[in-house]
Amino acid sequence: MKTAVVLGTGLIGTSVALALSRHGVHVFLEDRDPDAARTAASLGAGTVSSPEDFGQPVDLAVLAVPPAHVARTLGQAQERGLARAYTDVCSVKAGPAAEAAALGLDTTMYIGGHPLSGREKSGPLAARGDLFEGRPWVLTPAQDTRRDVFNRALELVSLCGAVPVVMDPAEHDRAVALISHAPHLVSALMAARLEHASEEAARIAGQGVRDVTRIAAGDPGLWREILTANAGAVADVLEEYAGDLAAVIGSLRALAKDPVGPSGDAANTELVDRLRRGNAGQARIPGKHGAPHAAYGTVPVVIGDAPGELARLFAAASAAKVNIEDLAIEHSPGQQVGLVTLFVAPEAAPGLVAQLSERGWTVQS
Amino acid sequence: MKTAVVLGTGLIGTSVALALSRHGVHVFLEDRDPDAARTAASLGAGTVSSPEDFGQPVDLAVLAVPPAHVARTLGQAQERGLARAYTDVCSVKAGPAAEAAALGLDTTMYIGGHPLSGREKSGPLAARGDLFEGRPWVLTPAQDTRRDVFNRALELVSLCGAVPVVMDPAEHDRAVALISHAPHLVSALMAARLEHASEEAARIAGQGVRDVTRIAAGDPGLWREILTANAGAVADVLEEYAGDLAAVIGSLRALAKDPVGPSGDAANTELVDRLRRGNAGQARIPGKHGAPHAAYGTVPVVIGDAPGELARLFAAASAAKVNIEDLAIEHSPGQQVGLVTLFVAPEAAPGLVAQLSERGWTVQS
Repeated sequence: MKTAVVLGTGLIGTSVALALSRHGVHVFLEDRDPDAARTAASLGAGTVSSPEDFGQPVDLAVLAVPPAHVARTLGQAQERGLARAYTDVCSVKAGPAAEAAALGLDTTMYIGGHPLSGREKSGPLAARGDLFEGRPWVLTPAQDTRRDVFNRALELVSLCGAVPVVMDPAEHDRAVALISHAPHLVSALMAARLEHASEEAARIAGQGVRDVTRIAAGDPGLWREILTANAGAVADVLEEYAGDLAAVIGSLRALAKDPVGPSGDAANTELVDRLRRGNAGQARIPGKHGAPHAAYGTVPVVIGDAPGELARLFAAASAAKVNIEDLAIEHSPGQQVGLVTLFVAPEAAPGLVAQLSERGWTVQS
Repeated sequence: MKTAVVLGTGLIGTSVALALSRHGVHVFLEDRDPDAARTAASLGAGTVSSPEDFGQPVDLAVLAVPPAHVARTLGQAQERGLARAYTDVCSVKAGPAAEAAALGLDTTMYIGGHPLSGREKSGPLAARGDLFEGRPWVLTPAQDTRRDVFNRALELVSLCGAVPVVMDPAEHDRAVALISHAPHLVSALMAARLEHASEEAARIAGQGVRDVTRIAAGDPGLWREILTANAGAVADVLEEYAGDLAAVIGSLRALAKDPVGPSGDAANTELVDRLRRGNAGQARIPGKHGAPHAAYGTVPVVIGDAPGELARLFAAASAAKVNIEDLAIEHSPGQQVGLVTLFVAPEAAPGLVAQLSERGWTVQS
């Protein structure tokens, strides 16, 4: 890839442009807000000169616009003969593809794309050339997508340092509804229940509810847009969830009424079954490098709150030649100690426990 | 406090006994399983000799039995004249207190207690004397609880290094339903939906759903017991949640049908409002030292996967004299880089960004 045009220089578009520019690709930048394009150019993302001045179609056009504008933007770009291949970077895939087909556009030159970057800021100033490094980037080729267009998109993903994952558009939309959009609403609605919690209830909140509701802090406007574009698939997941929830509420009511009679027994069985299915589903989620979290050994360590405590702990782990794959910190109100759980390769855990204990750390094993 | 008896030497009872023994309290240990009591004694938690041999009531009896057994155990202990004050450590408070009153026990000598320790193991071997350090410990005195009994319980909390929080029993049960029990089920049901997710969907799962479903890995048997004991209050929270969920599903269906018409407009407004309430509720949850997470400055740093990378990062933060209040690690499938977000005091963030950048770290600010 030698030339590209990025249409839409928000966070994602500018980040793509930065990554491509770093690899020597000549990137033309366009935005309906010329200031945004100029800002992106000033960051080194490319030039604001017209791609038409280049005299021939560029290698790839990246449509970095909201889902509702993808098909129209693709039509305008194809009318201008901007590029030899087109892709987009929005978070839903079936709708834009269907609209492009309905508009009679040349879909052989288009392939849907979705980098899962998980950044919570927006605008060109938040952009980073390494935004996609190591992240999954879904590509959704259609039946008629040309091989060279597919390969160009794979090159884009590679230049951005991301990991390509090929999916069908509808399958993608169902997948992100399940692993991203529905969990966001599940979290937001739980958090919303805490809005009017008593002072005392908020005070005794621990790491569990903190984790469950972390993503509820996301930007409402941005999430409204994402959820609207995938509304049907998200509603499907949430309806199944609501069915499970109604069953659990029924079990709880039965248990509240008569915990030890036959209806209580049935409710108990039902409840344990739901919780077990939760175990099974949780184990499906990959940790770092695609390994499920359950595959790690855990080493819980008590730490003080002085600057440098975590540094000392990690230096000790490093001296033990153990790689920390993940960690969790538990907090407590008004106290100067905490519990850090280190996740390491299972075979490394016993040695790390021994070495940390030897160096005077309190390890809860 | 000079003498105590711990009835029930599971995880919590043995941990309490260890903490008291460390402070020189003579602790008598009893369990319906004599092996468990002997195991606890062998860990240094106390002695298995009979408290009656002591010749006079001990200062405090700690009933470390499941919620359903608290009142009966209290009755037996009072019949034996075991102690001058009684408390328990189970996760619900209204039921046991009501049962004790119904049994005609001396409730002036009893005060409910609930240490929020958040440990996921069980049994005496998992016990730690520092299990409660810095954690909240709810006490639920009744109208007729004697002042000396209340103060004895406060001394227990203090000796365990925990932070006392005084609440009404029913208020406590509603609070833990809201901040612990309902979030557990909300998380478990979301995780259960992932049980049959496609391989690709699981692969693109990110930090969001990972956080939302982390606690779904909890022990089903243990959680069944907790949820059963507080079934009514949990059902109340989940019913309100289900109402919110139904409204959101309605909005999503309206948006799927007609995103731009008047019904779509109303649905959009409704959805944004729900997401905003999620923001507000999330902000209620305290971070470390009781400060909401939103009060921290965030410093996102790109790190490699070699052993010692986190150690280097924390050493750099330590050299900059900045205390890390919390952190989050984002993973990516099949890649050797990750993003670590450091949470620090807001005023410390700009300096840390500058110092880390100077030392060659890639900071996404």
